[in-house]
Amino acid sequence: MASTPTFALPPTFLGTPQRTAQPGPCVVGIPFDGGTTNRSGARSGPAAIRQASRMLVDGDHPYWRLDPSQAVADAGDFEIALGDIPETLRLIELQAKNFEHLVALGGDNGISLPLLRALRTRHTQPLALIHFDAHVDTWPDNFGQRYAHGSPFFHAINEGLVDPQRTIQIGIRSPVATDVMDWTLGKGVTIVTAEEVHESGPAAIARRIQAAIGSAPVYLSFDIDALDPAFAPGTGTPEVGGLASWQAQSILRRCAGLRFAGMDLVEVAPAYDVAEITALAGATFVWEYLALNLRTV
Amino acid sequence: MASTPTFALPPTFLGTPQRTAQPGPCVVGIPFDGGTTNRSGARSGPAAIRQASRMLVDGDHPYWRLDPSQAVADAGDFEIALGDIPETLRLIELQAKNFEHLVALGGDNGISLPLLRALRTRHTQPLALIHFDAHVDTWPDNFGQRYAHGSPFFHAINEGLVDPQRTIQIGIRSPVATDVMDWTLGKGVTIVTAEEVHESGPAAIARRIQAAIGSAPVYLSFDIDALDPAFAPGTGTPEVGGLASWQAQSILRRCAGLRFAGMDLVEVAPAYDVAEITALAGATFVWEYLALNLRTV
Amino acid sequence: MASTPTFALPPTFLGTPQRTAQPGPCVVGIPFDGGTTNRSGARSGPAAIRQASRMLVDGDHPYWRLDPSQAVADAGDFEIALGDIPETLRLIELQAKNFEHLVALGGDNGISLPLLRALRTRHTQPLALIHFDAHVDTWPDNFGQRYAHGSPFFHAINEGLVDPQRTIQIGIRSPVATDVMDWTLGKGVTIVTAEEVHESGPAAIARRIQAAIGSAPVYLSFDIDALDPAFAPGTGTPEVGGLASWQAQSILRRCAGLRFAGMDLVEVAPAYDVAEITALAGATFVWEYLALNLRTV
Amino acid sequence: MASTPTFALPPTFLGTPQRTAQPGPCVVGIPFDGGTTNRSGARSGPAAIRQASRMLVDGDHPYWRLDPSQAVADAGDFEIALGDIPETLRLIELQAKNFEHLVALGGDNGISLPLLRALRTRHTQPLALIHFDAHVDTWPDNFGQRYAHGSPFFHAINEGLVDPQRTIQIGIRSPVATDVMDWTLGKGVTIVTAEEVHESGPAAIARRIQAAIGSAPVYLSFDIDALDPAFAPGTGTPEVGGLASWQAQSILRRCAGLRFAGMDLVEVAPAYDVAEITALAGATFVWEYLALNLRTV
Amino acid sequence: MASTPTFALPPTFLGTPQRTAQPGPCVVGIPFDGGTTNRSGARSGPAAIRQASRMLVDGDHPYWRLDPSQAVADAGDFEIALGDIPETLRLIELQAKNFEHLVALGGDNGISLPLLRALRTRHTQPLALIHFDAHVDTWPDNFGQRYAHGSPFFHAINEGLVDPQRTIQIGIRSPVATDVMDWTLGKGVTIVTAEEVHESGPAAIARRIQAAIGSAPVYLSFDIDALDPAFAPGTGTPEVGGLASWQAQSILRRCAGLRFAGMDLVEVAPAYDVAEITALAGATFVWEYLALNLRTV
Amino acid sequence: MASTPTFALPPTFLGTPQRTAQPGPCVVGIPFDGGTTNRSGARSGPAAIRQASRMLVDGDHPYWRLDPSQAVADAGDFEIALGDIPETLRLIELQAKNFEHLVALGGDNGISLPLLRALRTRHTQPLALIHFDAHVDTWPDNFGQRYAHGSPFFHAINEGLVDPQRTIQIGIRSPVATDVMDWTLGKGVTIVTAEEVHESGPAAIARRIQAAIGSAPVYLSFDIDALDPAFAPGTGTPEVGGLASWQAQSILRRCAGLRFAGMDLVEVAPAYDVAEITALAGATFVWEYLALNLRTV
Repeated sequence: MASTPTFALPPTFLGTPQRTAQPGPCVVGIPFDGGTTNRSGARSGPAAIRQASRMLVDGDHPYWRLDPSQAVADAGDFEIALGDIPETLRLIELQAKNFEHLVALGGDNGISLPLLRALRTRHTQPLALIHFDAHVDTWPDNFGQRYAHGSPFFHAINEGLVDPQRTIQIGIRSPVATDVMDWTLGKGVTIVTAEEVHESGPAAIARRIQAAIGSAPVYLSFDIDALDPAFAPGTGTPEVGGLASWQAQSILRRCAGLRFAGMDLVEVAPAYDVAEITALAGATFVWEYLALNLRTV
Repeated sequence: MASTPTFALPPTFLGTPQRTAQPGPCVVGIPFDGGTTNRSGARSGPAAIRQASRMLVDGDHPYWRLDPSQAVADAGDFEIALGDIPETLRLIELQAKNFEHLVALGGDNGISLPLLRALRTRHTQPLALIHFDAHVDTWPDNFGQRYAHGSPFFHAINEGLVDPQRTIQIGIRSPVATDVMDWTLGKGVTIVTAEEVHESGPAAIARRIQAAIGSAPVYLSFDIDALDPAFAPGTGTPEVGGLASWQAQSILRRCAGLRFAGMDLVEVAPAYDVAEITALAGATFVWEYLALNLRTV
Repeated sequence: MASTPTFALPPTFLGTPQRTAQPGPCVVGIPFDGGTTNRSGARSGPAAIRQASRMLVDGDHPYWRLDPSQAVADAGDFEIALGDIPETLRLIELQAKNFEHLVALGGDNGISLPLLRALRTRHTQPLALIHFDAHVDTWPDNFGQRYAHGSPFFHAINEGLVDPQRTIQIGIRSPVATDVMDWTLGKGVTIVTAEEVHESGPAAIARRIQAAIGSAPVYLSFDIDALDPAFAPGTGTPEVGGLASWQAQSILRRCAGLRFAGMDLVEVAPAYDVAEITALAGATFVWEYLALNLRTV
Repeated sequence: MASTPTFALPPTFLGTPQRTAQPGPCVVGIPFDGGTTNRSGARSGPAAIRQASRMLVDGDHPYWRLDPSQAVADAGDFEIALGDIPETLRLIELQAKNFEHLVALGGDNGISLPLLRALRTRHTQPLALIHFDAHVDTWPDNFGQRYAHGSPFFHAINEGLVDPQRTIQIGIRSPVATDVMDWTLGKGVTIVTAEEVHESGPAAIARRIQAAIGSAPVYLSFDIDALDPAFAPGTGTPEVGGLASWQAQSILRRCAGLRFAGMDLVEVAPAYDVAEITALAGATFVWEYLALNLRTV
Repeated sequence: MASTPTFALPPTFLGTPQRTAQPGPCVVGIPFDGGTTNRSGARSGPAAIRQASRMLVDGDHPYWRLDPSQAVADAGDFEIALGDIPETLRLIELQAKNFEHLVALGGDNGISLPLLRALRTRHTQPLALIHFDAHVDTWPDNFGQRYAHGSPFFHAINEGLVDPQRTIQIGIRSPVATDVMDWTLGKGVTIVTAEEVHESGPAAIARRIQAAIGSAPVYLSFDIDALDPAFAPGTGTPEVGGLASWQAQSILRRCAGLRFAGMDLVEVAPAYDVAEITALAGATFVWEYLALNLRTV
Repeated sequence: MASTPTFALPPTFLGTPQRTAQPGPCVVGIPFDGGTTNRSGARSGPAAIRQASRMLVDGDHPYWRLDPSQAVADAGDFEIALGDIPETLRLIELQAKNFEHLVALGGDNGISLPLLRALRTRHTQPLALIHFDAHVDTWPDNFGQRYAHGSPFFHAINEGLVDPQRTIQIGIRSPVATDVMDWTLGKGVTIVTAEEVHESGPAAIARRIQAAIGSAPVYLSFDIDALDPAFAPGTGTPEVGGLASWQAQSILRRCAGLRFAGMDLVEVAPAYDVAEITALAGATFVWEYLALNLRTV
């Protein structure tokens, strides 16, 4: 009997047969795009990322020489409240509390807030945060909407979920109100622009991350629009001048040793993707994260 | 000096230079897709329909021999509340009250409810309704959400905005809970399936419309998914087996003589469109509607 | 807790949670396109059809007033032998024998042969056959390859798997060697061209099917290229002039009362699809088939 | 040694190895889109139509039972003058005079004029004309340009190249200035709208063609936008409500017996096509035309 | 009342409400692609760039901390002569003379010539020129056409519009006749290949620009195909090996202090774009240019 | 008479009129994708690469200042055995023996094996090998299939066709079984990961190639998935983090002086491409190779 080619795998993340929780990282989908401010469609992200992840099943991670698919479960999708941001945030938080270590596939970046609220209850102190994004996402408001995808970290800082002194943002380059930028910097957040990544290279950026985070439990929020639109066309608020995939991978690999407590990969909007390259990039960063964690164990 | 080719027209509906209201039909965009239940993206409909409408500028309507672009204004887009259905409905109703005869470019079909609420205040009785759609849109609930795009006519009937005895739905074919279908029929709504359109032809359907509506003021809600996905791929909840564009056009032309009070063209989701054919179909149905009204004047 | 929107369903056919066999129709995917003669890509059909089928979950079939999703299991994908036609045919036959009533999602039309070989062992006589296709698929050879997707019914007739006198082909219109056409007609096969469908209508075609099949156990092989490329661009050997989706649906509904023994839906090639309309058409025809069978039960 | 699958054929029309002229119909490409008034791109039509034509090579025409590929040569592309309409028209006419019976792959519909000028020199009287199109193409002007793609038949009538009394246009439906329409009708041209095709059917339309043309030598100009955008998205000036592919095929087959003198297939713009369905439709109509001619021989 | 999300902005550049000229930079569209030598479609560039520019409205430029949208008007599109290069060049020049500081959205690169002719009349000496492109655009001829998009700078140098000694071209990498290259170098033009950009980095390139231009009034012509096709697929004459978006941005930012007199952004062909990434890159470079100018003021 | 624009060239590689062999490099297409393990479609690669190559015709290579199109013939496509890997390998080998210096357009990477078998007969020793790829392609097995596209160099090493000590692989980054990686390294193959290319740059990589190959006759196998999916979306087994086009070009140019004996460019799958950028990248690398060889002559 033949073994299974990638295109015949079950459509779970990395084709894992398990669909219930387990100790260690567990993948869930959160198909909510109610807070997107430009192009919508991130609700279809989880299905697309899972489908693209089949490329990563057949073999070990070539750098770490271990197989991330061996240590992951896929618990399916969270319930959301259609068209209702506050209720959706409540539902996400409620469901997230059942998991020790979540790896969430978005959905828009607004889902990070309830995930952090749930995670915070497992920790005695605010979490450190690594945030890949083109946008600072610390707007106090999104065209009148308080809890949309431009604001999760404004609230997360204000609610004491993350420690701004141990927060680092990478890939920043969008237009932004100067007072939003100043508020963020004033809180102590480290902002690394995309241009800085291009000019100083992944190794230098990783050193800044290690310095900012130290040994604190750290959450990783990866908005796919940190990448340049050439590498990630399938997203709602693209900004040119972004990271190449290899830069993000190279930075992540140099985050080995950090104490990761959870992750989300957000803003993949498949309707704007081509040949699933954005979804594959998203799946790959999750796979890199799982490898980091497996290695640490 | 050369005249202006279609691709250099101002990006208003039919390239009209006016952007303020006037007596007679006035086009507005309502870029809201917060109530979509499957694929999102109808928020980008107004811009796409306007862009596609340039094809219809250069000449008279070949059947009615008059030029619909001469009698239309484009008042731009309504304000909406990002990610907040109830507040958006309130805002739409408020703004709609300023217009005598609106032609709204959606956005999802949920916008019909506040438009009907506003329009109802100008009339002493519930309006008659012609509704092109693959779905009855009389669900009392949308996966837990009361005011999403599957429910506008459930509420419109219950709130006395439209008269179900003078309501006719054309193109219906989606899966539907049997009790929803029975409630709708029980209220007196005439349901014409897509299969009936294919088998009896536009002339027979138009006679059923004329019989159902009579001389009552009538609202036209045209969900582009009434068309088959071959003719309208760019939409969120496609269902195969739908109408051809020519059938819808032919039915509309035979609606001459009805007393139209307003229209919406909804559910164009450009991210799923190809070569703007869905947006062009939407623009064409609005152009047919404007011709009907111009002719009546 | 909210219920589940379509875009958050498990990626099985019709979102069914069961993934093991049961009495009655059971869906399997057969991701094999090794025998395609023009554009390849049908190997990705099963995943796309399952994904598209989510549109059909929420409610009853509007004509039969029953819910096909209640009576179906999805047993996942069959093992295939990569790049090896003979071994793949052997594997498919072997696995198919475990199922009483298979509904196979292809893959190319070559998979029909081993499915019929397996099914034939459950019956004392050759099966009747309804075959929707642009091509007769009775070529003795495919550019030198004996068992590719142009030949399944040449072999099925020669091996006594189907009874050519009770075989009817619908939608035929491709170029074809005149001797192939004559061999097929000479065996007693009824060939209904696409042009005949357009000119005489679904009801007349359905009467010809009922007459040809009678009360014999019948297999349905539906090649999506029976549809016109406008309705099914996502396929490998498109031919213009084909059926509209509604025609196929209307014919299928009029097949009620036939004794169906199995089905395949083949040749969906998602790389050439737009907005998943081809995959949705395929999913819909399977759903129509399931409704027919549920009704008969 | 294996025979040649369709995807490995030489990229000539129908894979014909001959690339020089011969008695009987000869295919040439005319990659000029300088006169397009909306979306450009028809310059890439000849390459796309040839590539799509490979689908039609393997076998006989199923209706006429003969193989059109056996009687065609492909002489490559005509030289054109980049960005210069008058000079391009001159070059086309010059080159066309070398051929007895041309089948031209456009390019925009403006190429019909020099082709008719060249062909007229071989005939003692103006030619009859069958013109499939959404537009009458008898505008005296195109946004200031006299010889663009909206005017070929205005000039052809005025120059005595075609006989308006023996001219029939099929599929007409675009907006048009009423005086242009009246000029055309006043000259004696028979205009068959798309709506008439839908409502009376191909057989009735073909009878009108036969009546209009009689035994005169006749030129066929087929603008692919005669088809509905669902069937032909890949074109520059799409208009909804158009013909289905099968209708055009069915009409063409009923033109058997006419004395064809030449043909063009124009306005295929591959940049707007999906899965080459527009190019395939174009190739198929040429193949139908070749079959008609072969049969007549 | 809610504020306006990006997708509901007026479709002017950066959503500016002004549509008439003003002191300082003024955006116009020039939808002409009559001189393209490979794929056409740049006529649709202005509409696409404006639509994509909405991403850049909400906030200040993150580097310069000022808002370019506050100092721009959008005067709509220039009239062009359909299909007539010489007359179009005349019309562009005529209209351009009404503006003090134009920022033109093309259209093909041939429009630079009449823009420079008009601008030259405001200056006592030939202008300096910064030209981002894959091609030198100093061909004396384009397949027989003297004024197409491969020749603007051949003429601009010969006509004394630009000073070749103060001309620098960046991103050059296409095949080119050796005598064309030698003519260009012989005139004193500085040619920086794409490979040099990759290997020496933006800071070094910017120093070469500053050295070449000095304090002369300088025109910026940015052909989007200076970028690699990965970053700008939506163009007519792509060449691999090109610039990343960030490199162009980084170079532009280092051009602060130069005395800019006008700009064009050309060769965006939306029919070949994906998810509007090319149009967004184009809009972003214009936004960078506006920021440079605003800063200087 | 005008000269020929790129879009009107014959659809041979670089528009060469010759279609028969000659001394020196000769291009052939090998449209076989029977051994692809993820997405299929590489069978359509040769036609797409030829079509895209028209961009490279008009002028000299800007670095080497010579015209590669002057020294190439295009002998059309090899015969293959549809759906039969062993027979196809046999046919390829047989046909390849007729050529002195082949440049093969794939097709999947499995075609390298028979090409090397044929080439080996012209040499007294195993060949050196430069292999650009995301994957090592030394798997002993592909989901049960021995001769699919993951195994050509496993066999080539075992059969003594290439010398592993003089084999260098560039761009490697996919998941891989650790024993496969160790076997490859154990044989003496030099593996350069994509990350190493990014971090040390093309010049350093080229020095490693020159060191590994020396003066031995060397074969170049270029799998387009060596590039990042942003640069080459149109392929079957994409992996993020890959090379930029310019890096591959820069490395190739620094391979001047090597003694090339043949080349293949494989795994271009046009169904997943956008705006032909992948095909153009493939065509460009072949053009670079031809320039290297022409220069050496």
